[in-house]
Amino acid sequence: MVITDDREIDRAPLQREAETELDEDDRLKPAFVRDVIDLAEAGEVEAARERVGRLHPADIADLFELVSDEDRPLLAHVLGDMLSPDVLAEMNEHVRERLIDLLAPEQVAEIASELDTDDAVAIIEDMEEDEQQAVLQAMEPEDRAAIEDALSYPEETAGRLMQREYVAVPEHVTVGDVIDRLREDIDLATDFWEIFIVDPMHRPVGTCQLSWILRAPRSVAISDAMKREQTLIPVDMDQEEVALRFQKYALISAAVVDKAGRLVGMITVDDVVHIIQEEAGEDILRLSGAGDGDINEPIAMTIRTRLSWLVVNLGTAMLAASVVGFFEGAIAKFALLAVLMPIVSGMGGNAGTQTLAVTVRAIATNQLTASNTLRMIFREFRIATVNGLSLGVLIGTGTSLIFGNPLLGAVIASAMLINNLVAGLAGILVPVTLDRFDVDPAVSSAVFVTTLTDIMGFFSFLGLAVLSGLTAMG
Amino acid sequence: MVITDDREIDRAPLQREAETELDEDDRLKPAFVRDVIDLAEAGEVEAARERVGRLHPADIADLFELVSDEDRPLLAHVLGDMLSPDVLAEMNEHVRERLIDLLAPEQVAEIASELDTDDAVAIIEDMEEDEQQAVLQAMEPEDRAAIEDALSYPEETAGRLMQREYVAVPEHVTVGDVIDRLREDIDLATDFWEIFIVDPMHRPVGTCQLSWILRAPRSVAISDAMKREQTLIPVDMDQEEVALRFQKYALISAAVVDKAGRLVGMITVDDVVHIIQEEAGEDILRLSGAGDGDINEPIAMTIRTRLSWLVVNLGTAMLAASVVGFFEGAIAKFALLAVLMPIVSGMGGNAGTQTLAVTVRAIATNQLTASNTLRMIFREFRIATVNGLSLGVLIGTGTSLIFGNPLLGAVIASAMLINNLVAGLAGILVPVTLDRFDVDPAVSSAVFVTTLTDIMGFFSFLGLAVLSGLTAMG
Repeated sequence: MVITDDREIDRAPLQREAETELDEDDRLKPAFVRDVIDLAEAGEVEAARERVGRLHPADIADLFELVSDEDRPLLAHVLGDMLSPDVLAEMNEHVRERLIDLLAPEQVAEIASELDTDDAVAIIEDMEEDEQQAVLQAMEPEDRAAIEDALSYPEETAGRLMQREYVAVPEHVTVGDVIDRLREDIDLATDFWEIFIVDPMHRPVGTCQLSWILRAPRSVAISDAMKREQTLIPVDMDQEEVALRFQKYALISAAVVDKAGRLVGMITVDDVVHIIQEEAGEDILRLSGAGDGDINEPIAMTIRTRLSWLVVNLGTAMLAASVVGFFEGAIAKFALLAVLMPIVSGMGGNAGTQTLAVTVRAIATNQLTASNTLRMIFREFRIATVNGLSLGVLIGTGTSLIFGNPLLGAVIASAMLINNLVAGLAGILVPVTLDRFDVDPAVSSAVFVTTLTDIMGFFSFLGLAVLSGLTAMG
Repeated sequence: MVITDDREIDRAPLQREAETELDEDDRLKPAFVRDVIDLAEAGEVEAARERVGRLHPADIADLFELVSDEDRPLLAHVLGDMLSPDVLAEMNEHVRERLIDLLAPEQVAEIASELDTDDAVAIIEDMEEDEQQAVLQAMEPEDRAAIEDALSYPEETAGRLMQREYVAVPEHVTVGDVIDRLREDIDLATDFWEIFIVDPMHRPVGTCQLSWILRAPRSVAISDAMKREQTLIPVDMDQEEVALRFQKYALISAAVVDKAGRLVGMITVDDVVHIIQEEAGEDILRLSGAGDGDINEPIAMTIRTRLSWLVVNLGTAMLAASVVGFFEGAIAKFALLAVLMPIVSGMGGNAGTQTLAVTVRAIATNQLTASNTLRMIFREFRIATVNGLSLGVLIGTGTSLIFGNPLLGAVIASAMLINNLVAGLAGILVPVTLDRFDVDPAVSSAVFVTTLTDIMGFFSFLGLAVLSGLTAMG
C-alpha cells in the first residue's frame, strides 16, 4: 500500500487528463507552452502550477526545453517543488546544467539524494570540480560514497550507468525466504525486474525473473528457480557496448561486476534505451561534422564544433581546387569543361556518401566484422560498377547530344565510372581501416572520402579531356 | 521448476563457455566462423554442431549473417534443429527470408507456432501472399487466428508489434488470488514484467509491476496495489511513435488497446529496443540516399535504391551546372574562377549538411516542435553568420595573398558568406517545411539543400565576379 501511495503522488494521471496537452506525436502543444509562460509572466502562479501539475515528469522536463533560455528561471521559480528530482533526471543535460547553476549546493545535494545513483551521477558529473565538491560535502555520507564511487569510473562506462540499488540473495534461501525479505525491506524504493543470486564472495551465480519467483512454490530453493546463465557487464565496459549487449540478448536488467567478478551494481533497460537512441543518432551528426548536434547546447560551443569541421573541409576543398588549377590552361581554352566538372565530382561525393553511411551503420551495429568485410568490399565494388556504368551512359549520351560532341560525352562517361569506383571503394575502405585502428569511423571518414571523390572527379575528367585531345580541338 | 528446466534447454550457457567464441565487442570471432564452415564442408556434422551448440540463439543468428549466401543452406542443413524458432526470430530479415524459402510450409508453420505472436508475424509478414496462405493453413486454428489478426493491422504499427500473450485480471481479486492464478496457469510461457487489471469490458484500469505484487500482503485488493495511471498504446499507432513513448516514459511494457479501449495485446521493451535502433539509424541512411542500407538485402534491390537517388541527384547537378554554363564566357576570360568556384559551393554543401543533420535528428526525437522552431531558425542564422564571416575572412585573405588580387579575395569572401547563410537557412527550413507537410524530412531534404547550396555557390561567386568587373580586367 505504501508503495502504491508513493507512486500516485509521484506520477500525475498520465493517460486521462494530461493527454489533452499533448499532440498526436506526444509533444506538448505550442498553445499549452505559451499559456504556461503567459500565466507565469502575469504572476498567476497557482494557475500555472495547476496546469503543469497534470503532466508527467518527462513532459515537465520537455516544457523546460521548449521555452527560451530567458524564461526558464522564471518557470523554475513558479513551479518550485514541481521541478522534482525526477523532472531534472529527464531533462536535457545543457538545460539542466543552467538550471542547476541557479541552485545552492545544498539544494542540489537534496535532489541527488532522492535519485537512483545513475541519475544522481548524471546530474553531478557535468558540474565544475569545486561545485561538485560542495554538493558532495552537503550529502549524507552513504549517498556521497555511492556517488564518489560512481565518479571513480571513466565517463560513459557501465560504472557510471549502473545503480547501486538492486536485490541480491544467497544461494541457499528458498523462494519463500526471498518473498518474505522483499516484503520486509521497506527501503527498496526503486523498480526492479529480476533479482541476483550471489555466492559468499558476492559473485553472481544466477538470476531470477520476478515472474519465476511468483510462479514457483515457496518451498523451492532459489537455486532451483534461477537461471545460471546470465550476461554479466564488466564495470569498465563502454556504454555503447553495454547497449549493444542489452539489445542483442534482449535484456531487461543485468548484473555489473568488478574485476574480481563481484556484483557491484545493476543496469536496467530504461537507462540503456537512451544510449541506444543517442549512439545510433550520433553517427549522422558526426559524419556531417555537427558534433553532438544538441540544439540545447550553448551556441558558442556549437559554433566552435561546426567551424573547426568547416575549416578542415576548407583545407581539403583548396586541395581539390589546386587539382583544377593544374588544368587552368585547358579550361581557358575550353570553358565547357568547367561547366561539367562539378557534375563528376558531385556525383562521386553522393555515391561515396551512400556507401559511407551504410558502412558506418554496419560497423556500429556489429554487422560488419572481419568475417564478412572482404565480401562486403566486393559487394560495394559491384554496386559501384553498375551505378557508375549507368550514370556514365546517361551523362555521356546527354552530353554528346546536347553539345554535339561525342568525344566529350565519352570523356565525361569514363570519368563518371572511374569516380564512382573510387567513391564505392573509398566509402567502405576508409571507415573499415579507421575502425581497425580504433578511430571512430563516423567522425573522420567523410573528410577523406569527399576529398578523394572531389580530387578524382576533377582529375579524371580534366585529365581525360586533355589526354583525349579535346582541349586541342576546342 | 518446469519453468527453469525449459530455460536451461532453451538458452545455451552464455557467460561461461560461449564467451570464448566472441571478441571484446561481442562479435563472433572470424576464426570461429571459419572453423564451423570448414567442419560443415568436411562433413563433420557432429563437431560443427558441438561448437555451435554453445552459442546463444542471437549469436547463432549472427553466424548465419556472417557466412556467405552460398554457405547458408549447408549450415542450415548441418545445424538442423539448432536453427530454432528463437534463432530465426533474431535473424536479419533478408537472410531469414532466403532460409525460409528452403522450408516446406508445414515446417514454417511449426516454427511460427512456437514463437510469440510478434515474432511469428515478423517471419510471416514478408512472405509472398500464396506462401503465407500455405503456412497459415498448416497452423493450428488458434495460432492462425492470432496471426491473421496481427496481419490485419498495417505494417509498422502497434498491432503488428504486440504479443497476444499477457496477464490480465479483474479489479476485484486480491494479490493472493493473482499469485495463485499465476502459479496454476502452466501455459504462461512468455516473459512478462507487469500485469494488467481490466474492467468487465476488458478495458485496462490499471497496471501492477510484479515487484509490487511480490511485496504486497496477499490479502490486499489488486486495485489497491495497482497504479491507475498508465500509458496505453492505440493498436494503430506507428511503431516509431510507440518507440518514442517507451523511451520518454521509461516503459518496460505497455497495454495495447483497440478503438473501443479494450485490451488486445502487450508490447515489451525488448521489441521496442530494435525499433529505436533502426529508426535512429535510418535517418543517416535516408539522408544519404542509401535506402534501408541493409548489407544483407539482395544486391539488385540495393542497386535500384541507390541508383534512383543518384539519378535524381544527376538532374540537380545538371541544373547547377547550367548556372555555371551561364558564365561560360566569363570563365573563358578568367579561368581562375573555375578553380575557385567549387570551394564556395562545396563549403555551402558542408555547412548545409551540418544544419540538416541536426534538424533531422531534432525532429525525429521530438525536440523540435512548433514551440521552438522560430528560435531554432534564428539560432541557425546566427551560427551561419559567424561561420560564414569566419570562413569568408579566411578564404578571402588567402585568395588575395596567393593570387595578389584583393578584389578576387573580396568576391570569394562575400560569396562564401552568402552561401553559408543560404546553407544554414535551407538546412533548417527545408526539413521543417517537409515535416509540416508530413513528408519524411530525412528522405528528401538533402536533395533540396545541396541543390540550393550548389546553385547559390556558383551564382553568388560567378555573379559577383562579373558584377565587380573582375572578368573585364582578367
